[in-house]
Amino acid sequence: MTKKRILTGDRPTGKLHLGHYLGTLENRVSLQDDYETYIMVADVQALTDNFDKPEKVRDSVYEVALDNLAAGLDPEKSVLFVQSQIPELAELTVYFMNLVSLERLQRNPTVKSEMKQKGFGSNVPVGFVNYPLSQAADILAFNADIVPVGDDQSPMLELSREVVAKFSNIYGYSFRMPEIMVGRVARLVGTDGNAKMSKSLGNVIYLSDTEETVRKKVMAMYTDPNRKHATDPGKVKGNPVFIYLDAFCKDKAKLSELKERYAAGKVGDVEVKQYLSDVLNEFLEPIRERRRYYEAQPELVKTILSNGTQQARITVAKTMQEVRSAMKLFGT
Amino acid sequence: MTKKRILTGDRPTGKLHLGHYLGTLENRVSLQDDYETYIMVADVQALTDNFDKPEKVRDSVYEVALDNLAAGLDPEKSVLFVQSQIPELAELTVYFMNLVSLERLQRNPTVKSEMKQKGFGSNVPVGFVNYPLSQAADILAFNADIVPVGDDQSPMLELSREVVAKFSNIYGYSFRMPEIMVGRVARLVGTDGNAKMSKSLGNVIYLSDTEETVRKKVMAMYTDPNRKHATDPGKVKGNPVFIYLDAFCKDKAKLSELKERYAAGKVGDVEVKQYLSDVLNEFLEPIRERRRYYEAQPELVKTILSNGTQQARITVAKTMQEVRSAMKLFGT
Repeated sequence: MTKKRILTGDRPTGKLHLGHYLGTLENRVSLQDDYETYIMVADVQALTDNFDKPEKVRDSVYEVALDNLAAGLDPEKSVLFVQSQIPELAELTVYFMNLVSLERLQRNPTVKSEMKQKGFGSNVPVGFVNYPLSQAADILAFNADIVPVGDDQSPMLELSREVVAKFSNIYGYSFRMPEIMVGRVARLVGTDGNAKMSKSLGNVIYLSDTEETVRKKVMAMYTDPNRKHATDPGKVKGNPVFIYLDAFCKDKAKLSELKERYAAGKVGDVEVKQYLSDVLNEFLEPIRERRRYYEAQPELVKTILSNGTQQARITVAKTMQEVRSAMKLFGT
Repeated sequence: MTKKRILTGDRPTGKLHLGHYLGTLENRVSLQDDYETYIMVADVQALTDNFDKPEKVRDSVYEVALDNLAAGLDPEKSVLFVQSQIPELAELTVYFMNLVSLERLQRNPTVKSEMKQKGFGSNVPVGFVNYPLSQAADILAFNADIVPVGDDQSPMLELSREVVAKFSNIYGYSFRMPEIMVGRVARLVGTDGNAKMSKSLGNVIYLSDTEETVRKKVMAMYTDPNRKHATDPGKVKGNPVFIYLDAFCKDKAKLSELKERYAAGKVGDVEVKQYLSDVLNEFLEPIRERRRYYEAQPELVKTILSNGTQQARITVAKTMQEVRSAMKLFGT
């Protein structure tokens, strides 16, 4: 039996963080043994709102690849590739643009809130409004069965599924129907408790942070804002430190005991934070080790990307041959 | 000195007619000796409003190629190619989409009136709204200096010029600044005097019409609606028959004499129409002869398209290499 296929990826606009890990990287790594896994460094997509910062995008391609490898993505099992090096993805995007109305695109709640947040106003680039269709093209070009992404991506998956139906209806070719797979923590709060993690808010712990940096960031984390002293009973629910512990602490007995003590006012914030630092640093240690391995060999990382891109292109070429013929293009 | 470059083309959605000839084909043919000429069969663009009629588009590719060859396009001098076989044009379109706001695209008067005419309403496909940017990509990918098109295309040229400026500003690469070249008759009226020529209105004379069909269509043409008898003084200005004669009659003395007699009520409609039939059939005869030559060799037409496409792709590949490097894409 053929393996089912996974396609997902990251916009190269900066380093990946713990939220990315829980939302999608963890799934990628754990599924790569059983699925044919394609991981895309989405530089074309990154350019839709960073078109005037091409250096930033270019440099982040390497960083994001490194983050994936450090997180445990095995280039022997998974295909890591660069979006811009597969122009067929743009070709498919252009064909999909005929199947979806502008009004439908403008209804996407994730894009709407991103537009607001980025302050685009009426100046929003066509490419940005259209990026969910570009994502649909990525997913369908690989005929992905499973798309491990954050839950903010579910409107994109919905659109991709609509395109599958519409394309099949008009051209009689059926892409595989993709399913979303959200990580076990759909969205991790920032270290300040803010629902949105972002570099500009400075509330992010990166996979590439050093032991020292992690300790510092954890020590500055928000906890229960109403708790003044270690002897005050503290609130566990909604407390960022415990949200992080829930996500990363493996010793559930110890965590449960700590929560009880916290609620009873029998442990100080400092002790809980020290424990969280230990937990995170223990979790990050193998990631750091793999990072050091790959960082020492930048040429290896480039080779992995270039081999992956070649392999990905073969897969896409096969789909596109079927697509072009279904669309009855001249010469097919 | 290198020759200046021309890029233009036709949507393969039906046969070409006298309006196309005057608007652009005539220029293509007369300029091909002095310019590096690229003529695109724009099937990708045709699909933006014919996405559900792929057979029609595919079959028209061959028809439109034949029309160009019949009109005098010389495959030894000009490059005739098929848009969908150059995916790099979609790639460039996708990058241009980041540089132009949705609002800017929606201001295009030609697209607005086409949307109205096609009854798209709020259901307009993204691809249709975006086709002027796809045209910009076609023009700039070839670094065209001159774009011979109908005058309805001037908003597209304006947009292309804006993209040149914007791209140069952001990425430091300057495409050649394209100039529009409108034919000596910017827009030919229909045989019924309607400003818009269209198949559905049945007011079109095709380059491929037979002598007999041309005669019939001319005999049914609108003239001066207020003239009842051959002895009534007739109106020459705005009279479709004289508009056609102005465009196609080479014997200006004879035409001027005919106009005088018409205005004085000294010639019947039938005689004028018979003369126009003769003029048009004389004009169309060499076109028909070339059509017969190419029609007898469909494989030759396909070879011309396939060689042209290969040649066009080399030109585009060169531009795209420069574009990708200017955009600092990974690996460039």
